[in-house]
Amino acid sequence: MRIAIDAMGGDHAPNAPVLGTIQAARDLPDVEFILVGRDAEIRVITSEFPPNVTIVHAEDVIAPNAEPVKSVRKQKDSSLVVCTTMVRDGTADAMVSAGNTGAFMVAGLFVVGRMEGIERPALAAMMPTFKGQGVLLMDAGANTDSTAKNLVQWAHMGQAYMRLTHGLSHVRVGLLNIGSEPGKGNELSKVAYELLEHDCSHFVGNVEARELLNGACDVVVCDGFVGNVLVKFYEGAGMGFLESLKHIFFANPLTKLAALSMRSGLKAFKKRFDYAEYGGGPFLGVRGVLVKAHGSSNPRAFEMAVRHAYNMQHSGLIQDLEQSIHG
Amino acid sequence: MRIAIDAMGGDHAPNAPVLGTIQAARDLPDVEFILVGRDAEIRVITSEFPPNVTIVHAEDVIAPNAEPVKSVRKQKDSSLVVCTTMVRDGTADAMVSAGNTGAFMVAGLFVVGRMEGIERPALAAMMPTFKGQGVLLMDAGANTDSTAKNLVQWAHMGQAYMRLTHGLSHVRVGLLNIGSEPGKGNELSKVAYELLEHDCSHFVGNVEARELLNGACDVVVCDGFVGNVLVKFYEGAGMGFLESLKHIFFANPLTKLAALSMRSGLKAFKKRFDYAEYGGGPFLGVRGVLVKAHGSSNPRAFEMAVRHAYNMQHSGLIQDLEQSIHG
Repeated sequence: MRIAIDAMGGDHAPNAPVLGTIQAARDLPDVEFILVGRDAEIRVITSEFPPNVTIVHAEDVIAPNAEPVKSVRKQKDSSLVVCTTMVRDGTADAMVSAGNTGAFMVAGLFVVGRMEGIERPALAAMMPTFKGQGVLLMDAGANTDSTAKNLVQWAHMGQAYMRLTHGLSHVRVGLLNIGSEPGKGNELSKVAYELLEHDCSHFVGNVEARELLNGACDVVVCDGFVGNVLVKFYEGAGMGFLESLKHIFFANPLTKLAALSMRSGLKAFKKRFDYAEYGGGPFLGVRGVLVKAHGSSNPRAFEMAVRHAYNMQHSGLIQDLEQSIHG
Repeated sequence: MRIAIDAMGGDHAPNAPVLGTIQAARDLPDVEFILVGRDAEIRVITSEFPPNVTIVHAEDVIAPNAEPVKSVRKQKDSSLVVCTTMVRDGTADAMVSAGNTGAFMVAGLFVVGRMEGIERPALAAMMPTFKGQGVLLMDAGANTDSTAKNLVQWAHMGQAYMRLTHGLSHVRVGLLNIGSEPGKGNELSKVAYELLEHDCSHFVGNVEARELLNGACDVVVCDGFVGNVLVKFYEGAGMGFLESLKHIFFANPLTKLAALSMRSGLKAFKKRFDYAEYGGGPFLGVRGVLVKAHGSSNPRAFEMAVRHAYNMQHSGLIQDLEQSIHG
């Protein structure tokens, strides 16, 4: 298996992608990792590249806020576009990037291409829950103004994903809605409910946002505008909560001492809500394994994203999806 | 001033509405409070009704999950419909209910009626922020599939509300969106951005959900589907987060002891995020002061909602809104 790594994408590039990849490469000696980016900038980071890590030089870098369509079209020699081209050509089986999310999706759509039968690929985000393994939200922002049919396709892809990568046999799908009874919601959710009821096994019906973190379902589908708002809000609220707690714990020497007694509990709590542990979001519905790592990924978060790409490829997810669409 | 109270609405009715109202009535002796509901059930709660609290008997109660339009139409003698009828007829200046939210909005729309010039009244929700006084979100769920023009009207109403009830002179309005640059988002947000830019003073542009709790704006406008998802998610996440903390604090005798040292900090933190302190959400754009208290309101939360209704009426908000629409 060969995994292409966009070494130049993300707030801490090239350090975080390079160091995260090296860590993953040590644990996965049979996998070949290809760091794509500016050769000199990559080499200067360390002198100890494992034998299964190689470098492919790409001169250009797509800026974090660059206009996605234009930059993918024009910056053919950017690390991101080279990575996706490798997946398209079969010189890589999977790729990971922490760069510009819009450009990542555009490159996925136009360089790698959609799976036949999938109208709109979707970005999936694993949201940590208070109970259980988390909930996979689709779409986390690739598509706005989506259709009910889109949501049904995402439900199917989400189910296959959770089955193969998390080992769940009954993957419960919920429709994010503003009421729990059938018939509630906006035009999209009313139609989507009908379709999902007939066309999705283990559909648990409408799920209100209040119940999302209590393990109400394993996959939740919604329009990408709503999903993106939710994922970003969760991130902001989580960071704010942790920040507030820090102030309480570090208020004075006594509270600092007291916080020590809670160390293990706090550590477990923080780990559960640390995005770094969740390994980035897969872009599902394109003809290859594409994983988007968080823009602010540190080496650990990037490493988890790389492992995630490995697991997806190893599980045969793409083949499974293609079969289930056409079978 | 006379305030009508739906004594039968909410999870803890009639206790919470009655006890909350009595508390507010003691502090506001010049205001007349009218408890609307089943006379016998209300009287049995206490023998000490202040002189400025009277009871108006209403036999019927709209159930929490009753179909809103049907129940408002048929249950004319329900506590909720009687309250709104009093506002319409001028026998009350304001009303508060913790009952069925859908029925509350339907009664507001069809009994009290829209303000002339307002296409869609909106439910406003004050969301606690990590910094500052909180952010007013409109619409929190009264309207799905809303138009850009709706959002502009909500922006104006939200500004008047924050100016009069929170004493802000420059009320910053943000458009909830999935990117910060102009031109981002779905069809609705693209058009709404253009309109707000031309027609709203102190428009700060797109606000991403990640920034919402950092004081990025005082009022944020969005479609009611998105708003409702956000408000409910916040509630669920907040409760889950506090629950998790409790487990950490009560893990063993040592952590319990340690938690004592952080008592004041934790108390302040909890108070900031306690919905009870925020006094319910006003339904803005109808011809009267209508405040929706949270369904799970305890006496304290209901009291705050009553005070909220008093403040809104006292500030002359409705007159101000009517003038600004027509002036």
